[in-house]
Amino acid sequence: MKDLNYANLEVGYDVPAVPGMDEADIQTPCLILDLDALERNIRKMGDFAKSHGMRHRSHGKMHKSVDVQHLQQDMGGACGVCCQKVSEAEVFARGGIKDVLVSNQVTQPEKIKRLANLPKLGARTICCVDDLANVADLSKGATEAGTQIECLVEIDCGAGRCGVTTTPEVVALAKAIDAAPGLKFTGIQAYQGAMQHLDDYAERQSKTQIAIEMVRDAVDALKAEGLHCDIVGGGGTGSYYFEGASGVYNELQCGSYAFMDADYGRILDKDGKRIDDGEWENALFILTSVMSHAKADKAIVDAGLKAQSVDSGLPTVFGRTDVKYVKCSDEHGVVADPDGVLKVNDKLKLVPGHCDPTCNVHDWYVGVRGGKVETLWPVSARGKAY
Amino acid sequence: MKDLNYANLEVGYDVPAVPGMDEADIQTPCLILDLDALERNIRKMGDFAKSHGMRHRSHGKMHKSVDVQHLQQDMGGACGVCCQKVSEAEVFARGGIKDVLVSNQVTQPEKIKRLANLPKLGARTICCVDDLANVADLSKGATEAGTQIECLVEIDCGAGRCGVTTTPEVVALAKAIDAAPGLKFTGIQAYQGAMQHLDDYAERQSKTQIAIEMVRDAVDALKAEGLHCDIVGGGGTGSYYFEGASGVYNELQCGSYAFMDADYGRILDKDGKRIDDGEWENALFILTSVMSHAKADKAIVDAGLKAQSVDSGLPTVFGRTDVKYVKCSDEHGVVADPDGVLKVNDKLKLVPGHCDPTCNVHDWYVGVRGGKVETLWPVSARGKAY
Repeated sequence: MKDLNYANLEVGYDVPAVPGMDEADIQTPCLILDLDALERNIRKMGDFAKSHGMRHRSHGKMHKSVDVQHLQQDMGGACGVCCQKVSEAEVFARGGIKDVLVSNQVTQPEKIKRLANLPKLGARTICCVDDLANVADLSKGATEAGTQIECLVEIDCGAGRCGVTTTPEVVALAKAIDAAPGLKFTGIQAYQGAMQHLDDYAERQSKTQIAIEMVRDAVDALKAEGLHCDIVGGGGTGSYYFEGASGVYNELQCGSYAFMDADYGRILDKDGKRIDDGEWENALFILTSVMSHAKADKAIVDAGLKAQSVDSGLPTVFGRTDVKYVKCSDEHGVVADPDGVLKVNDKLKLVPGHCDPTCNVHDWYVGVRGGKVETLWPVSARGKAY
Repeated sequence: MKDLNYANLEVGYDVPAVPGMDEADIQTPCLILDLDALERNIRKMGDFAKSHGMRHRSHGKMHKSVDVQHLQQDMGGACGVCCQKVSEAEVFARGGIKDVLVSNQVTQPEKIKRLANLPKLGARTICCVDDLANVADLSKGATEAGTQIECLVEIDCGAGRCGVTTTPEVVALAKAIDAAPGLKFTGIQAYQGAMQHLDDYAERQSKTQIAIEMVRDAVDALKAEGLHCDIVGGGGTGSYYFEGASGVYNELQCGSYAFMDADYGRILDKDGKRIDDGEWENALFILTSVMSHAKADKAIVDAGLKAQSVDSGLPTVFGRTDVKYVKCSDEHGVVADPDGVLKVNDKLKLVPGHCDPTCNVHDWYVGVRGGKVETLWPVSARGKAY
């Protein structure tokens, strides 16, 4: 958003900061991005994908930011975006992203109509399918719009949400897509979301192996029917090395690696080390201020439930072992301060428990480098849940 | 927002619905308000306050909506708004609310400056104080702006967050406020947030009684010093009848009564009956659609963590006992459907676990009555956390 008109934005009301400002003057609570750490994470995942002969379709549902997505493509070589909602896809397509996968089912008539119009914005448009009736509806939508929707058959390989679970179902759907006017069969979506956050590396590996075998079986059966998978997509921050070495997946769909969070950070790599201790850096923080310290041993900070999602646990205080975020209510966080080291207006950097829904609460990312605010990026698809 | 220009809004991208539309055509997931139920709740609380000789300052942090606040004032006789952040106060003052309490500490220099400018928008401006140094800072801010900030001394009467805990501290702060140029001592803030959600009526009563006695002691001590409390504020949806009968509180600060949620709904009244079974009606719902039913016994719906906050538990499915929302991920909800009664594109009305942070995720309230969309209200202070 290089054309953002800062002159019209009121700091502290419209935005938490403007470029050029000292980091110390940022209004809280807000999201800040350590741009150096973010860029290192993005380059690292790009290097991994390249060296393993994989494409990386970065997951835009995590950051919901056109600017971060462009950075992932320009600096990390990402081939396009995946996102979960048609309204997100519209934001990315309007923001100049040319290859957009809605890694989800699109079933409502109004949404199918909008999806079918996406190619008119110049974006390759892909969605997922797990239902034969939906194939007919998508075909009708694309035909009426005079466009093409590419379809991936979704396999539920353990997440227990959308997707079919047997190879015959995959083949039947793929054939129906292949035969449907306006649609193109493009491959398979098989993201195992449920195991990404398991601490143990070997446990994640064995669950991913089940997914890989399901996908391999389906790809082989499709091949026997003359159906080629241009995309075999899946793999997240907790498993991309397994899919990357599988020989059957060809597109990774990692999201959280770029920002990191407390819940992902604590999972262990193959050496038993936390993944936020070397593999990935914390680039995203909730900046918060102490607003009350009326009790000697606890500080009250200004980031509560309106500044984060605590579905995956409370945030941690970055770089501090002397204080601990212990409780959260709507607008307050309670920070245990046993030695009374904090003062009113002191700032803390919190690592959110779960980055995706936390980013979705905020309107802005404040990008910082070397103690200065370098950029301000809108959370472009914030609230785009339709 | 009667001047909203619907012609510029794209349904499904900018907004989930427009007035005049059939309820069946609303795009999901989104928040809907049952306007009949909302109005009955608002009138009922207004009647309670009036019949008990209390003012009701409705809590705007819950709905963050200028439109709902105006309804609470016009239809429910509310005297003004309370909110938790300066940015929220700015939204309400700019939206024509003339009596604004920030029921929270305001300590950062930039925020004090903004607070001190609020009276220039025509709003009586009140905030809370629990720190002597803050009194001096607020005084400086008001003096520099040439305005007056009214101050309430906050008593921590059990919530364990901001506020002082002894009468001598209250008196010392009140005297300092009274002596400070630009400030006016206006009374006491004593909201017991921690016990509002306890199921048991008698338990809530005994905890509120402790608060009432702390407040009475403080009010008496202030009186002995010649300091009058214009406002003695507190009381929520789980306790307002106790503060209302206390003879010492004179302003209630209820929020959730207007919308209700699953966590509040399950607390019990004096007869052991849930408060959402007669005392208050569910007026707020997350409208969601089934997007996948690839497994016989579970439906996947389109409302996950990006459409709600689950800090106080999962949502319930309104009016249904045959299906149950059992799991939540970023964009998906898993609904157990043991008898397979749901179909793709069926809609469900979810009662959110916790209304306040759920409303803060959405941009719009869709007001419905008699099967039609009657109005569309922005969540005016959404994301205003600074």
